[in-house]
Amino acid sequence: MSTSQLSFKRLPMTLRLYDLAGAESNRRFSPYCWRIRLALAHKKLAVATIPWRFTEKAAIAASGQGLVPVLVDGDRWVADSWNIATYLEDTYPHAPSLFGGDTGRNLTRHYSSMADGLVSAIFPFIALDIFDRVAEEDRDYFRTTREKRIGMTLEDFVADRQAKLPAFRANLTPLRRTLMAQPFLAGDQPLYADYAVFGPFQWARCISPFALFEQGDPIRLWRDRLLDRFDGLARNAPAYDV
Amino acid sequence: MSTSQLSFKRLPMTLRLYDLAGAESNRRFSPYCWRIRLALAHKKLAVATIPWRFTEKAAIAASGQGLVPVLVDGDRWVADSWNIATYLEDTYPHAPSLFGGDTGRNLTRHYSSMADGLVSAIFPFIALDIFDRVAEEDRDYFRTTREKRIGMTLEDFVADRQAKLPAFRANLTPLRRTLMAQPFLAGDQPLYADYAVFGPFQWARCISPFALFEQGDPIRLWRDRLLDRFDGLARNAPAYDV
Repeated sequence: MSTSQLSFKRLPMTLRLYDLAGAESNRRFSPYCWRIRLALAHKKLAVATIPWRFTEKAAIAASGQGLVPVLVDGDRWVADSWNIATYLEDTYPHAPSLFGGDTGRNLTRHYSSMADGLVSAIFPFIALDIFDRVAEEDRDYFRTTREKRIGMTLEDFVADRQAKLPAFRANLTPLRRTLMAQPFLAGDQPLYADYAVFGPFQWARCISPFALFEQGDPIRLWRDRLLDRFDGLARNAPAYDV
Repeated sequence: MSTSQLSFKRLPMTLRLYDLAGAESNRRFSPYCWRIRLALAHKKLAVATIPWRFTEKAAIAASGQGLVPVLVDGDRWVADSWNIATYLEDTYPHAPSLFGGDTGRNLTRHYSSMADGLVSAIFPFIALDIFDRVAEEDRDYFRTTREKRIGMTLEDFVADRQAKLPAFRANLTPLRRTLMAQPFLAGDQPLYADYAVFGPFQWARCISPFALFEQGDPIRLWRDRLLDRFDGLARNAPAYDV
């Protein structure tokens, strides 16, 4: 049982978050869960994270689907990161806003979509590293579902990753230019737009030693600023120094 | 002399916009100018557009650089679409907002960067069509500068465009998903984020008969909603029905 579960038992009103874990229960690596971890910290909401593996579908069945993040708030079960973010904003309106108002919320939705696109763009670099680090009971599930999706073995998928790196970095030019013009996507301070886009990069560094960025890349510097937020919440998680 | 120049002469306080034109002076096709055309309409600001060709650097020298859009407001010359958009917002604060507040402005900047990325993504499909439609005096300039940038002839650059189309469309998945969830990037009504991303698609349809979208693509439907805005400002421009 993890510390966070213990604290949940001491504080039963605390929010609970089912959070994807690898072979080690403290290796949390879901890009979608990380968004919500930072969103909860932004709203100063205490949360007990529960390590969860891909195959533990029964544990989150009350959410009506089989993927994390799943937030449990009393008797409310909320799935899907965008749904959870808007749920938190609407349910805890007096906590610091994730969106900066209605227009901000509408403008933030596409950041969430973009971040989903980033997950697809990063996966060809880290797919096998994920396999190597998921829990023993998840290995068959992960390989089978992902190889069906990509139409080849994980090994073949990542074989030419070094050659793919320049195009990946070039495709990030718009993000890089924005982050050269302002410290965060939301301006001087981060909002959910930042956390949504940060998720895929935190996913990568938590599960893979492969270096996606060059030193000094403005995107990497922005990522590092987010690592430092909330007393180093994301930096202090088990991860690789890439 | 275009009608808009005549109206400028009748109304000397009207804003002026140097607007890229092709061989026909009413074929306006700059992705960056179109953003500003819609932004001006959004703010209900009258503008006299001045057809401008790539090689007419002298006409806009007062802006301190050689690219359009260039806005002239009395004795103020403003270049660069993002600069112009923020200039309009700050100078005409009582007109309808382009950003929906400070957070909206900050969140909009990346839409502008993304749209610049879209220009690069679309160029391999329409590069030769642009060459075929620029003014006679611009042809050498356009071919020379663009072929230097892409490292091959315009003809070679577009030769396999049909084969590139599926990947182009797949890369637009995040944008498509956002626009399946809400009618505009800014929500129920468009703001500058929409105009910025619309610009590259309007560029393409104004200068090229090549069909980037399938019928019924949610991105195309969103584009069409923007074509209808402001009494069909963008729809009524000379363009191809693609």
